[in-house]
Amino acid sequence: MKGSCIIGQSGGPTAVINASLYGAVKAAMESGQITRVLGARHGIKGVLNDDLIDLNKEDAEQIELLPFTPSSALGSCRYKLKDPDSNSAEFEKLLEIFKKYDVRYFFYIGGNDSMDTCEKVSRYMDKAGYECRVVGIPKTIDNDLAGTDHCPGYGSAAKFIAVSMMEIYKDCRVYDKRTITIVEIMGRNAGWLTASAALASKFGDGPDLIYLPETDFDLSAFLDRAVAEYEKQGGLLVAVSEGVHNAKGQLIVEESLETGDGFVDAFGHVQLGGVASLLASKLQKRTDAKVRAIELSLLQRCAAHNASLTDITEAQNAGAAAVKAALDGFTGKMIGLERCVNAEGGYASRTIMIDLSSCANAERTVPQEWITDGGITDEFIDYVLPLIQGSPERPIENGLPKFTKFRNIKAQI
Amino acid sequence: MKGSCIIGQSGGPTAVINASLYGAVKAAMESGQITRVLGARHGIKGVLNDDLIDLNKEDAEQIELLPFTPSSALGSCRYKLKDPDSNSAEFEKLLEIFKKYDVRYFFYIGGNDSMDTCEKVSRYMDKAGYECRVVGIPKTIDNDLAGTDHCPGYGSAAKFIAVSMMEIYKDCRVYDKRTITIVEIMGRNAGWLTASAALASKFGDGPDLIYLPETDFDLSAFLDRAVAEYEKQGGLLVAVSEGVHNAKGQLIVEESLETGDGFVDAFGHVQLGGVASLLASKLQKRTDAKVRAIELSLLQRCAAHNASLTDITEAQNAGAAAVKAALDGFTGKMIGLERCVNAEGGYASRTIMIDLSSCANAERTVPQEWITDGGITDEFIDYVLPLIQGSPERPIENGLPKFTKFRNIKAQI
Repeated sequence: MKGSCIIGQSGGPTAVINASLYGAVKAAMESGQITRVLGARHGIKGVLNDDLIDLNKEDAEQIELLPFTPSSALGSCRYKLKDPDSNSAEFEKLLEIFKKYDVRYFFYIGGNDSMDTCEKVSRYMDKAGYECRVVGIPKTIDNDLAGTDHCPGYGSAAKFIAVSMMEIYKDCRVYDKRTITIVEIMGRNAGWLTASAALASKFGDGPDLIYLPETDFDLSAFLDRAVAEYEKQGGLLVAVSEGVHNAKGQLIVEESLETGDGFVDAFGHVQLGGVASLLASKLQKRTDAKVRAIELSLLQRCAAHNASLTDITEAQNAGAAAVKAALDGFTGKMIGLERCVNAEGGYASRTIMIDLSSCANAERTVPQEWITDGGITDEFIDYVLPLIQGSPERPIENGLPKFTKFRNIKAQI
Repeated sequence: MKGSCIIGQSGGPTAVINASLYGAVKAAMESGQITRVLGARHGIKGVLNDDLIDLNKEDAEQIELLPFTPSSALGSCRYKLKDPDSNSAEFEKLLEIFKKYDVRYFFYIGGNDSMDTCEKVSRYMDKAGYECRVVGIPKTIDNDLAGTDHCPGYGSAAKFIAVSMMEIYKDCRVYDKRTITIVEIMGRNAGWLTASAALASKFGDGPDLIYLPETDFDLSAFLDRAVAEYEKQGGLLVAVSEGVHNAKGQLIVEESLETGDGFVDAFGHVQLGGVASLLASKLQKRTDAKVRAIELSLLQRCAAHNASLTDITEAQNAGAAAVKAALDGFTGKMIGLERCVNAEGGYASRTIMIDLSSCANAERTVPQEWITDGGITDEFIDYVLPLIQGSPERPIENGLPKFTKFRNIKAQI
């Protein structure tokens, strides 16, 4: 089917979401079917606002830089469409835009919420009798999308975390003065990212204790354990997920505020803050250690300089596979990755198709049987290790990375 | 002169302090004069405590990994010796250890305080009539040592900061919802590290405003300026040194506490915290932006995975030059780096010797004429750019870096 396509990016940035964009854009441009490749600025909002750019008019050099450029080159949004069955106003607007540019293909790169968007767009267009093939491309550092072995974006974030934990360990243990360091890692509900810190402990030196949000966190038991480990080992490094919570499901930071046992500053006042700061503050009172809290913050999701080549390649493959699926007539699908074995018996992956309705809004967490008390089993290591392999040849100028900079040429009818 | 040598590392870790250790160890082992290479565990404290390891007995493979291993492989300390003229007890102990192992060479890798240690040891041994050649090897991410064009350790930290700022910029500008991000960078008195964030702005996209501790910081003027820039640009990224202070020399965080105008949490209570958190909190009240504070923390000084090859090479050269200087009969010197021009007219550096007495405890800051209101001139860019060039071939196993792990075999007499 001849027609234009719209590609959008949505949700939090990753180091490789633009590699997926690259894979999709190249496949679309080479398809012979897709007459024009439009980019939605800031995701679905760009479609609603008729804020579309013509990717065919961007410089080839900038397109070629996409696989090495972190964050979303088209801009992103966090925007949830209403249900088309009860509130169709936005969908009528989308249809109007699709008709205006003769859009017959819609590709959307994102996580759970983005797959929800895809599912709704697909359902509405179908109901409206407007032929448009909708395929989602998975992306999330959180690795929590259902139906896929893992998500593009995760491997690179996991690699940055593992390498940084190895380096931080070396730094923390350098003095004869003993230290406690608490590193806070992203992931509200899924602990895949925090778990990747275990790679440092497995293959070098890394955290002594690791806590994911998949299990309940008992603050008092943690403090006793941490003090004991610190005394035993002469130092302590802890990796903790931002989402750790008590048995009632309450975040530990909130629990501490509520019990009045919270994070208190030099003036005795209760403080709000991240969980690493809270734990550090409590351990400072219980030990003679130099205690430090570190938040990996945005660095863990945008560190393209330490991206995994496997992740970049898979992200690109997922983008290309989405275009191929649509050209083959599929719609209402998300591309997933399936783990398989290569000719040498090693790791390989292939793209698969998953019904959007089965993965939208679902959440995949770390299996309970991979989680020990304060640690992670080798099953997790076997799972994650292939995903962090390889480093790309990155384009460098003046000793610094070169990133895509689009001219953002507005699409004409 | 035949005899043993002791090598020690002191002060804060860097990504390349072990490259200097490597340069010195290799030169010493190949000298034909230095009969044994001893490593002091945790710097001068290791000498005082007779905690020395025999580096000749460590595996060659572990020695070869040194240039790529962050932090101090021998361990470090922050320990200031008393003045030998008024209090010689510790120096008598040092002399006893030197005699015990027939130590005729002492090499110490570190910053200002470490050069003070070198100077005192050199002076005491001279006075005691014990022939021992003492040479200091410069190291500091802060780049504040006097007498040298720049310091090993700085280039790699500057590179990590520049690359991270480019990546953070991409992340911050991804949403249509506008953001303000404040990044806090190390450097209490010298702004070299914070200034390196300007590389991102010069060669890609980076901070809109940069503040060093070399100039006074007016909190109220900053807030007005930041709000105006945010409104004008639709987003704001600020790099700020941890050491910014008001005209009275008071840290901004302390000033805010004192004026009662400080960092207040959800309960209205004054908070202690870093300067990035303070500025973020104040800007949150003045704008509708999503405001975030990021501390680069330990990552900026131990990120060997993004080290500069130029820095590694120069660190190694400085270590080797120290051994050569001592073998040539010099003592009471620190090795420095002098900038020169290579055959193609490009950047090169050579090692020089500086009197310890002229550099110990001195501090070199960013020249005032390189600092603008909220920014940095191109003279600084010209200065720093050569120092971040090149990436080494790092030893990788399982997709992760391989770091030196010494067996720490205790030195025998």
